[in-house]
Amino acid sequence: MTGSRGAGITLTDGVTVTVEPADERTVQLNGGEIQMAPVERVMDTFGIDARVVAESALPLGAGFGVSGAITLGTALATNNVFPLNRSENELIELAHIAEVEAGTGLGDVVAQARGGVPIRVEPGGPSHGTLDGVPETGRIEWVSFGDLSTTSILSGDTRLLSEAGESALASLRERPTLPRLFELGGTFAREANLLVPSVTTVINEVEREGGTAMMAMLGETVVALNTGLSDIGVDDVSTCQVHSGGASMKNA
Amino acid sequence: MTGSRGAGITLTDGVTVTVEPADERTVQLNGGEIQMAPVERVMDTFGIDARVVAESALPLGAGFGVSGAITLGTALATNNVFPLNRSENELIELAHIAEVEAGTGLGDVVAQARGGVPIRVEPGGPSHGTLDGVPETGRIEWVSFGDLSTTSILSGDTRLLSEAGESALASLRERPTLPRLFELGGTFAREANLLVPSVTTVINEVEREGGTAMMAMLGETVVALNTGLSDIGVDDVSTCQVHSGGASMKNA
Repeated sequence: MTGSRGAGITLTDGVTVTVEPADERTVQLNGGEIQMAPVERVMDTFGIDARVVAESALPLGAGFGVSGAITLGTALATNNVFPLNRSENELIELAHIAEVEAGTGLGDVVAQARGGVPIRVEPGGPSHGTLDGVPETGRIEWVSFGDLSTTSILSGDTRLLSEAGESALASLRERPTLPRLFELGGTFAREANLLVPSVTTVINEVEREGGTAMMAMLGETVVALNTGLSDIGVDDVSTCQVHSGGASMKNA
Repeated sequence: MTGSRGAGITLTDGVTVTVEPADERTVQLNGGEIQMAPVERVMDTFGIDARVVAESALPLGAGFGVSGAITLGTALATNNVFPLNRSENELIELAHIAEVEAGTGLGDVVAQARGGVPIRVEPGGPSHGTLDGVPETGRIEWVSFGDLSTTSILSGDTRLLSEAGESALASLRERPTLPRLFELGGTFAREANLLVPSVTTVINEVEREGGTAMMAMLGETVVALNTGLSDIGVDDVSTCQVHSGGASMKNA
C-alpha cells in the first residue's frame, strides 16, 4: 500500500517544527514529550539523532493530520539543519513513507506538502502520486471534542471506506468547488460509517441554519465553512483560513 | 514544444489579478491599459469576455515572469467569478499552454503555480510535467535597470541555452540548495551568453563583497540573496522573500 486517494483542506492553523542536533532523540509537542513512530522512522532513514520541538495550534488525534505534519516538518527541518542536500520531493516522499509504514495516515503528508485544497488523484508520494486541487479559498471554523484512532480504522475493514471514497472523489473532480467538497465529505462520512453522535448533532445544527460543515476524518471534530459554527453559538470555535501554500521552511 | 526544464525562485513580490464580467475585453496593469496575448488566449479558451485588472510590484519584461503571472491569475480568477468548475491543474495547464503559444515564456506559469524554489524536472503543465523544489527559503533583494525581449531570445538559436541549462540543472539536482542555485544560475547566464554589461557589473561587485547574486532571466535585472545588493549601496533596491506557496485565490 502506497497511500490513498482523497481530498481535504489544508489550514493556516498548523504545526511548526524546529530540529536541533542532539545526542538523544526526543520529540516534544507543545512542551510535553511524546512518542511518535513516523518521526522515529524519518530519523532512522537519515541515520541521525535530533531534538524535535513541535508547536501545534491543532489537537493531536482529532483528524487534522498533526502527526503527518510533524513528520513532514521533521524531514524538512532536519535536511536544513544537518544539511542532507535532499530535494523537496525526496523529503516529502520520505515523510509519506514513514507515515504509511507507521500506520498513522495514508495521505496527510502529500496533502500538507501541497497546501490549498488538495485532491489526491493517484495515491503515493511525489515519485508516483498525482495531485490536483480545488482552486478556491475561504474562512474555516473548527471545534474538536476528542480523538479517534486512525490506526484502528485503517487496519479494520476498509471496503466501505474505499467504495464511498471513490464515488465522492469522482463527483468532486466533476465539479471541484469548496461547498461541493463539504457536501461530498458529508455523504462519504455517512456511507463509510465514520460519523460519531457528537459530530452529527453539530453538523445537523449548522445545516439547519443554512451553513456547511463536515467531520474531520478521522477525529471527533467538526469543520465548517465561513461562520457555520459561530452562527449556531458553539463554544471554543477556532477560526482560520484555507492555507494558500504547502509546508515550507521559515527563516531562522 | 511543451515547455522547458529549469529552476528559479518565486517571490513574495508578485502580481494580484482581479477579473470582472464585462462586455469588452480589457487588460489593465498598474492602472494602464495593455495588450497581453496569453491573457487573450485564456479568455478565448473559456469563450468569455472580462475586464482583467492586474497590480504588480514587479516590472513587466524585466525577467520576473509578470506576463505568466497575469495569465495564471486570469485563469484562476475567471474560473472563480464565472464559475467554470475547472480544477487547479486544468487552470494551470490552460495558462501554461497560453504562455507557450504566445511565446512569452516556457515555464513561468508552472513555476509560479507551485511556489517556493521550483525545479522543472520535466517540461510541461500538470498533465505531463514534473516539478521538484529546493527546500529552502530566504531574503531576496532585486534591482532592475530595464527589459529584454524573451520572445526574441526564445525564437533565436537556443542550442547554447539548452546545453548550459541541462548541465546546470543536473548539478542543482545533485545538491538542491539556494546558494548553489545562484552559483549555477551565474554559470548558466555566462555560458548561454545572456549577460548584459549593467548586470555583470553589479553581480561582480556583490561577489567582491562576499555576497551572492545572479541575473533574472531574461531581464536587465539583478537578484541577490540576503543583503547582497544593499551591502554594496545600490539605489532603489527592493526586498522580499522566497514565496512559500504558489499562486492562490484571495478571499473577496
